[in-house]
Amino acid sequence: MHKPLSTGATIGILGGGQLGRMLSVAAARLGFRSHIFEPGVACPASHVADQLTTASYTDTDALQRFAETVDVITYEFENIPTSALDVLEQVATIRPGREALRISQDRLTEKDFLNSLGLKTAPYAAIDDAPALGAALNAFGTAAILKTRRFGYDGKGQVRLQPDSDPQAAVADLAGQAALLEGFVDFSHEVSVIGARGADGAVCCFDPGENVHSNGILRTTTLPARLSAAQRMDAVLLTANILNALDYVGVMGVELFVTSEGLIVNEIAPRVHNSGHWTQNGCVVDQFEQHIRAIADWPLGDGTRHCDVVMENLIGDDMGRIGTIVKDPTSAVHLYGKAEIKPGRKMGHVNRIVPAQTRKV
Amino acid sequence: MHKPLSTGATIGILGGGQLGRMLSVAAARLGFRSHIFEPGVACPASHVADQLTTASYTDTDALQRFAETVDVITYEFENIPTSALDVLEQVATIRPGREALRISQDRLTEKDFLNSLGLKTAPYAAIDDAPALGAALNAFGTAAILKTRRFGYDGKGQVRLQPDSDPQAAVADLAGQAALLEGFVDFSHEVSVIGARGADGAVCCFDPGENVHSNGILRTTTLPARLSAAQRMDAVLLTANILNALDYVGVMGVELFVTSEGLIVNEIAPRVHNSGHWTQNGCVVDQFEQHIRAIADWPLGDGTRHCDVVMENLIGDDMGRIGTIVKDPTSAVHLYGKAEIKPGRKMGHVNRIVPAQTRKV
Repeated sequence: MHKPLSTGATIGILGGGQLGRMLSVAAARLGFRSHIFEPGVACPASHVADQLTTASYTDTDALQRFAETVDVITYEFENIPTSALDVLEQVATIRPGREALRISQDRLTEKDFLNSLGLKTAPYAAIDDAPALGAALNAFGTAAILKTRRFGYDGKGQVRLQPDSDPQAAVADLAGQAALLEGFVDFSHEVSVIGARGADGAVCCFDPGENVHSNGILRTTTLPARLSAAQRMDAVLLTANILNALDYVGVMGVELFVTSEGLIVNEIAPRVHNSGHWTQNGCVVDQFEQHIRAIADWPLGDGTRHCDVVMENLIGDDMGRIGTIVKDPTSAVHLYGKAEIKPGRKMGHVNRIVPAQTRKV
Repeated sequence: MHKPLSTGATIGILGGGQLGRMLSVAAARLGFRSHIFEPGVACPASHVADQLTTASYTDTDALQRFAETVDVITYEFENIPTSALDVLEQVATIRPGREALRISQDRLTEKDFLNSLGLKTAPYAAIDDAPALGAALNAFGTAAILKTRRFGYDGKGQVRLQPDSDPQAAVADLAGQAALLEGFVDFSHEVSVIGARGADGAVCCFDPGENVHSNGILRTTTLPARLSAAQRMDAVLLTANILNALDYVGVMGVELFVTSEGLIVNEIAPRVHNSGHWTQNGCVVDQFEQHIRAIADWPLGDGTRHCDVVMENLIGDDMGRIGTIVKDPTSAVHLYGKAEIKPGRKMGHVNRIVPAQTRKV
């Protein structure tokens, strides 16, 4: 693509969950239409999208037809099968590009990449068999987490091990999946940066937010994060470093551990990110619009934060509190239109606005 | 309706223009689906709605089927044929109610209603024939505007007359349409109040905005409006007066002339209003969500303004400036996805944010 997409163009989005839904709305706000590709039925994004293809990622014909109707393709999740990407990229540009997907689809590749940029990560070791795991547990000498290299999210595919855990049993539980062992990091808190890079190479990062997880699922993101000015600068610079190294176009979420020895990169996500939902009510241009601007070859938005925000995920039975939440004058509610409440299911989120300590606009 | 609509319920919206489009997005944000009824093809709201019925307001079967799929019906414009409303209300609740539509569909009825509440309007006279017009022009003794009683918007159906204008010619131009003559009001500026009334009778008004028109079309709305504290209070109280008198449920736009003798009501619109678009970036809950909350029997949002805003409509060739506008860090852009740019056509709007002089949150 060589020039900005015109109003009326169609954005193809792989994945019809809440992120695809909010991307669709942002695309509409800029005058674009959206076309969702999603294997599941009754997906949240379908309620607000112009077109919907319900098909499997192995359905080559459906992928081909989908790609022919759109002007650019993006995605709401990183675990898109390579074979599907091979079909799609013959027809339309995929943004962010495949290198970002290749790297973030595999925890080992991702850690190698981050270290190649001189960024710090948790200590890690590739685990192919029980002897390798035994050796790594010994070498780390502390509690550690065994993670599958691929397809993990929200804490799935992770198990905590001690130095004396049985490597045979742990490896057997992997059922043949490639894995890596990550040493624990002694961190005080987690922050994340939502960074964006335009097709013109411009980089713009939102203010880092501070995240609290529970059972592997994000509960809250609080702005501003507890960071010194130097840490804040570090967080933004390392995010720009990652974006530039990948010649990235779009929004990326970068999770960071704050430690006494500096910032440690936990993981990167080549897409809009749950920890960036606060931007919907804290910025003139939010992460969803920023992503659409980037992939449409439009100038990035400014992204300045104009107030303090606490974003809280509404998970499962949290929806029981919705009657109270909608009465709170400081709360902006965002629900995903999911029909059924299930434990651990993200049903929506709420952005609670507080006047900024220091006005930034 | 006796209890709040549940997430997943469907909001029926008559009209698929930009107001229907932004209502659909607001409905989705609260977890609702929307079903648009619109005679025109390729309407802006269809890009973000869950369902679309393309049919005429005289198509009784289509109206019936539409009503059967929705949990409540609302509208983006007041000139809905009475016969269509008769069909729809047999199946589903229409909000705001028909009394508000009946009154606002006819300029004469509207003025009579406002005066019956003790509110001031421009001097007016019903015009059924040339002698009546001649007498009214004489009686006013100033320039005046002859307006059709029904179906006028954006300055259409209006002609300016002088005391010595030819009543015969002016009445002939009406081609048999019922009309009224409005005397000019000596006002310094125009403001509007976007008011909301919940199903529980709660009233909540957004801060009045100051409007500038050109050729009968709104150009800008500026917050805060130039109003004294007493005028601001008057504006809100008279809006509440109107809402309560109609047992109204939903959002209403009330246009007011500011004069040395107080506020004069120009007109009311029983729907979300162009002059309320600033709320999208100036409030935690905007006019669109406020309207959906009201008609869904949810508690109204707070509506407090958290920053100063200038809303500018992007009309016709204004779209030529879009490349510059999207680079402005203080500008939030809202485009309607209309394919063709035409003179006088509302293509989008931009909310320019400035830190509030006095923080209200």
